[in-house]
Amino acid sequence: MTDHIYKKIELVGSSKTSIEDAIENALARAHKSIHHVDWFEVQETRGHVVDGKVGHYQVVLKVGFRLDDD
Amino acid sequence: MTDHIYKKIELVGSSKTSIEDAIENALARAHKSIHHVDWFEVQETRGHVVDGKVGHYQVVLKVGFRLDDD
Amino acid sequence: MTDHIYKKIELVGSSKTSIEDAIENALARAHKSIHHVDWFEVQETRGHVVDGKVGHYQVVLKVGFRLDDD
Amino acid sequence: MTDHIYKKIELVGSSKTSIEDAIENALARAHKSIHHVDWFEVQETRGHVVDGKVGHYQVVLKVGFRLDDD
Amino acid sequence: MTDHIYKKIELVGSSKTSIEDAIENALARAHKSIHHVDWFEVQETRGHVVDGKVGHYQVVLKVGFRLDDD
Amino acid sequence: MTDHIYKKIELVGSSKTSIEDAIENALARAHKSIHHVDWFEVQETRGHVVDGKVGHYQVVLKVGFRLDDD
Amino acid sequence: MTDHIYKKIELVGSSKTSIEDAIENALARAHKSIHHVDWFEVQETRGHVVDGKVGHYQVVLKVGFRLDDD
Amino acid sequence: MTDHIYKKIELVGSSKTSIEDAIENALARAHKSIHHVDWFEVQETRGHVVDGKVGHYQVVLKVGFRLDDD
Amino acid sequence: MTDHIYKKIELVGSSKTSIEDAIENALARAHKSIHHVDWFEVQETRGHVVDGKVGHYQVVLKVGFRLDDD
Amino acid sequence: MTDHIYKKIELVGSSKTSIEDAIENALARAHKSIHHVDWFEVQETRGHVVDGKVGHYQVVLKVGFRLDDD
Amino acid sequence: MTDHIYKKIELVGSSKTSIEDAIENALARAHKSIHHVDWFEVQETRGHVVDGKVGHYQVVLKVGFRLDDD
Amino acid sequence: MTDHIYKKIELVGSSKTSIEDAIENALARAHKSIHHVDWFEVQETRGHVVDGKVGHYQVVLKVGFRLDDD
Repeated sequence: MTDHIYKKIELVGSSKTSIEDAIENALARAHKSIHHVDWFEVQETRGHVVDGKVGHYQVVLKVGFRLDDD
Repeated sequence: MTDHIYKKIELVGSSKTSIEDAIENALARAHKSIHHVDWFEVQETRGHVVDGKVGHYQVVLKVGFRLDDD
Repeated sequence: MTDHIYKKIELVGSSKTSIEDAIENALARAHKSIHHVDWFEVQETRGHVVDGKVGHYQVVLKVGFRLDDD
Repeated sequence: MTDHIYKKIELVGSSKTSIEDAIENALARAHKSIHHVDWFEVQETRGHVVDGKVGHYQVVLKVGFRLDDD
Repeated sequence: MTDHIYKKIELVGSSKTSIEDAIENALARAHKSIHHVDWFEVQETRGHVVDGKVGHYQVVLKVGFRLDDD
Repeated sequence: MTDHIYKKIELVGSSKTSIEDAIENALARAHKSIHHVDWFEVQETRGHVVDGKVGHYQVVLKVGFRLDDD
Repeated sequence: MTDHIYKKIELVGSSKTSIEDAIENALARAHKSIHHVDWFEVQETRGHVVDGKVGHYQVVLKVGFRLDDD
Repeated sequence: MTDHIYKKIELVGSSKTSIEDAIENALARAHKSIHHVDWFEVQETRGHVVDGKVGHYQVVLKVGFRLDDD
Repeated sequence: MTDHIYKKIELVGSSKTSIEDAIENALARAHKSIHHVDWFEVQETRGHVVDGKVGHYQVVLKVGFRLDDD
Repeated sequence: MTDHIYKKIELVGSSKTSIEDAIENALARAHKSIHHVDWFEVQETRGHVVDGKVGHYQVVLKVGFRLDDD
Repeated sequence: MTDHIYKKIELVGSSKTSIEDAIENALARAHKSIHHVDWFEVQETRGHVVDGKVGHYQVVLKVGFRLDDD
Repeated sequence: MTDHIYKKIELVGSSKTSIEDAIENALARAHKSIHHVDWFEVQETRGHVVDGKVGHYQVVLKVGFRLDDD
């Protein structure tokens, strides 16, 4: 690793099925427009509720990626 | 949305199988006595251990619901 | 419970499949060398990313266990 | 003051006009069913947005009140 | 332990004599109306002052209890 | 709501008159370049002082918006 | 700006009318005895309640000022 | 209560015997030079250790007092 | 003090009688196997409840000690 | 200062030599694409280790800049 | 150490050259008017930026000192 | 990276000269007894003061390392 610079952005992924799936959804979206997505950090896990069941998980995460050198 | 008032209570759901299941268990219990359960926020994820394996996941969550207008 | 003393150590479990699996991996490792593993507390959930997908979940957890009386 | 016991509950007041109004709305609602409401502590200030303007302020607050001696 | 659900409420106990006594006062009050009080967690320790001495200790604590299954 | 992804950015709005006005100024600016601005969360409230009076309120806020599906 | 040193003190301003007014009251008081009051940072917003309405807003703020060079 | 202004300072009281005694020591010292000491808030409880026993408790506390109107 | 290195471990002391006693119990246990125990920092104060009274105080503390030079 | 709006982004600068150098590297990179970079706030200081020495310092910082009025 | 009382104040040191130098500047200033300055704790590290370089480091620190017995 | 498990311990490095040197001292000590030291995270930066100058920097850091598979 040379002296790379990284940027972290904050995304909220949502999913009807699981926390992991909400994370994957957010990462897939980030991957569309960002090169070098490198790591994530979960900030908050929450969701909304429908009829006493989880309607959607909502996972707030920081996504880190290397900035191109130029 | 008009000027509704919401209340948040703190519950701990437990489950032998997964974090998601512990959340669902807490929400199902809240649903028995509360109308309009609307959202949840995970506060802590922990558990106790039996023979080097997770015995129960214990998920502390805030549960938010709309207060009846009256 | 008499006046036992407990110790908490901080481990990072990793897994390709799920947050729960990363927790189990860390607990299994702790179980190899520690008696009386009693509870865990998740501190952070993060991971690294490969091709826009989760490569590994990394779960930082405190693991609590009873110290032998002697 | 003798050795009174107090309870704190968590409410979310909302208002179209101001942070102060959202607080007053939550307190007015608490006052309907609770005697001796004594103090509040703001936990979070947030809101949702409509057409680039604040639609509703949402103020999360702890509300403290004395429990009856009984 | 089966998949019990727990609730946490926030109380403020006060006492002229000690932090421990303020905790006991809050627990005694909770015990009057709640079955299965199980644990507490101190959130804040504070007090008011009279003539340069502690007038009352005020201890904010979360009190956890098991919800009846029904 | 389907499985939308949201992004949160951090802005600082300033205003000579009030906290609410500083929030509105930041949201108005966000609205110029972002579709679907959905909610905000106040992070910090501060300001600078001129002659013992508030010169400007400065409100740090997270602004959340839905990412276009594409 | 040369290498100035600043000091931060913690004040609580109160007001019957608004959060902003509580801040201004604290700053006005600081201005009586401190030169170069430069900025403030809100730490807590709370208040006490009378008959279900805000009796006084109480805003805890850090107030920063430049120390004279000498 | 009219629109009083309060100041909070941070003291560390120490005591060989108990946490409460360390608090009282700090308050007694504050009382020597400050009028209207009104409340305290414990920030940290720590101490140093001599031969496996507590040598001194050290309690960091905020002490709040009303500023004279003038 | 030369350039010593210190280590901090996390222990939970418990006691039926007081917070101070729980701290002393944890320090006594640390003293059995660690040289140069130097200071402690309370992290959490909690306990479990039996019949509406404190059954055990449980105090989570960091314990700091100097590492031998070698 | 008129009612400017600022944005804060989160960068991670790295350096083999010092914390200050890691900060400068991140700021230099931000300067390439952002006008009016105004201030930074260190969030975390960390690094990776090679053969018992610091391989790279990694400093996570918020970087604040004024948005163009347009 | 007998039962001394300590006070902590909050200062902001600034320096064009390094974080350490900003700390030293704040301590030197404290030393002018305070006896027995004993320790410091860094609270925040920040700075302002000129032309993509650090213009000044600004280090917020708590400074602790023993109060004279009298 | 396969499913490795990591451990984090907390050390305090001290140095008369700089924050970086205090970090290096702690890492050098960890390296004596731990294989695979991998990363560090600064938790606190503090120090004690002699004659208005920094006597020692004290840097509290988490040190992370891979546990041997066996």
